[in-house]
Amino acid sequence: MARSVVLLSGGMDSATVLALAREAGDDCFALSFDYGQKHRAELDAARVLAQRLGAAEHRVIEIDIGQLGGSALTDIAIDIPEAGGEGIPVTYVPARNTVFLSFALAWAEVLEANSIYTGINAVDYSGYPDCRPEYIAAFQGMANLATRRAVEGQPIAILAPLIDMSKGDIVKLGDRLGVDFSLTVSCYRADDRGAACGHCDACRLRQEGFLTAKLPDPTRYR
Amino acid sequence: MARSVVLLSGGMDSATVLALAREAGDDCFALSFDYGQKHRAELDAARVLAQRLGAAEHRVIEIDIGQLGGSALTDIAIDIPEAGGEGIPVTYVPARNTVFLSFALAWAEVLEANSIYTGINAVDYSGYPDCRPEYIAAFQGMANLATRRAVEGQPIAILAPLIDMSKGDIVKLGDRLGVDFSLTVSCYRADDRGAACGHCDACRLRQEGFLTAKLPDPTRYR
Repeated sequence: MARSVVLLSGGMDSATVLALAREAGDDCFALSFDYGQKHRAELDAARVLAQRLGAAEHRVIEIDIGQLGGSALTDIAIDIPEAGGEGIPVTYVPARNTVFLSFALAWAEVLEANSIYTGINAVDYSGYPDCRPEYIAAFQGMANLATRRAVEGQPIAILAPLIDMSKGDIVKLGDRLGVDFSLTVSCYRADDRGAACGHCDACRLRQEGFLTAKLPDPTRYR
Repeated sequence: MARSVVLLSGGMDSATVLALAREAGDDCFALSFDYGQKHRAELDAARVLAQRLGAAEHRVIEIDIGQLGGSALTDIAIDIPEAGGEGIPVTYVPARNTVFLSFALAWAEVLEANSIYTGINAVDYSGYPDCRPEYIAAFQGMANLATRRAVEGQPIAILAPLIDMSKGDIVKLGDRLGVDFSLTVSCYRADDRGAACGHCDACRLRQEGFLTAKLPDPTRYR
C-alpha cells in the first residue's frame, strides 16, 4: 500500500487533497502545524478531518515560525485586513510552505512514504510566491537531492493536485469525494469555535467557490 | 551594512562560518535549533559563541523534528555508535538541513537579509545526502522562487563556504579568524558540560582536523 504524508491545515483545500489521496488508495499520514496562527480553530478542524477522512495517523508539530514575525497571521501587531489590496498580501507568512514541506519531507523519509500531498493552489493565492507550480517543481528538485531515500533511488513525489484549479472546481471535487466542508475552517479570523467572519480574503474566496460550483455554502458564520 | 542569517550549531564548522561572515563585515543573526538532540551542550556552546563572535542577535528555535524519529541523534531507542560503518550513518537526521535552511530562509526574509551562511561540509560528512554542493545549489534554486524578496528582485544567497574544505583546513581558517575552539562542541555524546567522548565519528573527525592542521587540540575530554 502506497504511503503519503498529507499536509492538512484544516481548510477546504487540504481536506480535499486528503480525500483525493485516500481515493487513490494511499495510507495517509496527516501533518498539521501549530505555528502561532491566530485562527487556531483550524487545528481543531484538522483533527476532526483527519479522523473523518480516514488518515492512518495525524501529527501536529509545534513550530516557532511566528517568533520570527513578519505576517499578519501570526503577529498581533499586524491586523488582518477585511480584503487584500495589490501584490503580496500581509497575510503571507515568510517561507511558510517551504518550512511545512521540509517537515513533511522529514516525516516522509522516516515513514518511507512515496509522496507528499499539499493543497497549494496558485489560482486563488497568486499573491503568494510559494504557491506557484514553478516553486513546487523547484522544491521537488531540491528534495530529490536532500534525502537518503532519493539517493537510494526512491525519490519522494511532491504532489500539488489542486495547484491549477479554481476554488469552484475544488468545491466540486471535494463534494464528489464526500468531504464535509462544514468541518473545514478557512477564515483567517475564525473564532474559537471555528465560526467565520465572512469578510476576509479567505472567506471571500471560499464564498465564490460555493457560488461558482452552484453548491450550498455550509460555512458557519458568526 | 549587509545582513546575514548564520546557522550556528555550536560546533567548530558553524563557529568558523560565523567568524567568516563577521570578517566580511556582515551584521550577523545567529540561528540555532533545539530539536531534541541528545548532545544538548552544543546549544549552550552556540549561545556563548554567538556572543563572543559578535552576532547582532541569537535565536534558538524549538522544533519537534525528533518526534518524527529516525535518527540516533534524537531517538533514545537508537544508540550512537563509537564509529560509523559504510553508507549513510545512523546519526543522519532526516531532512535536517532542509528544515534548518527553511527556517533560516523565513528569518532572512523578515530581516531583509542578503544571505544565509551554513557550515555544511561535504568532505567530512560525505555520508549525509544534504551536505553536498548539488544539494545547496538546488536549495538556492528553490529559495529563489519561494520568497517575496526574491520575487521582488532581491534573492537571498545560500552560502556554504566550507563545503569543499577538509577538517584540517577548517581548523586553520577558524584559527586565523580567532575562533576559540575550546568553546565549540562537536561530540555527539557530549556530557552536560560539553566534555567530549573522544570516540564517536564527530570526535574522530575533529581530532584529525587538529592533527593535520598541526595545531593543539583544545577540546575538553572526559
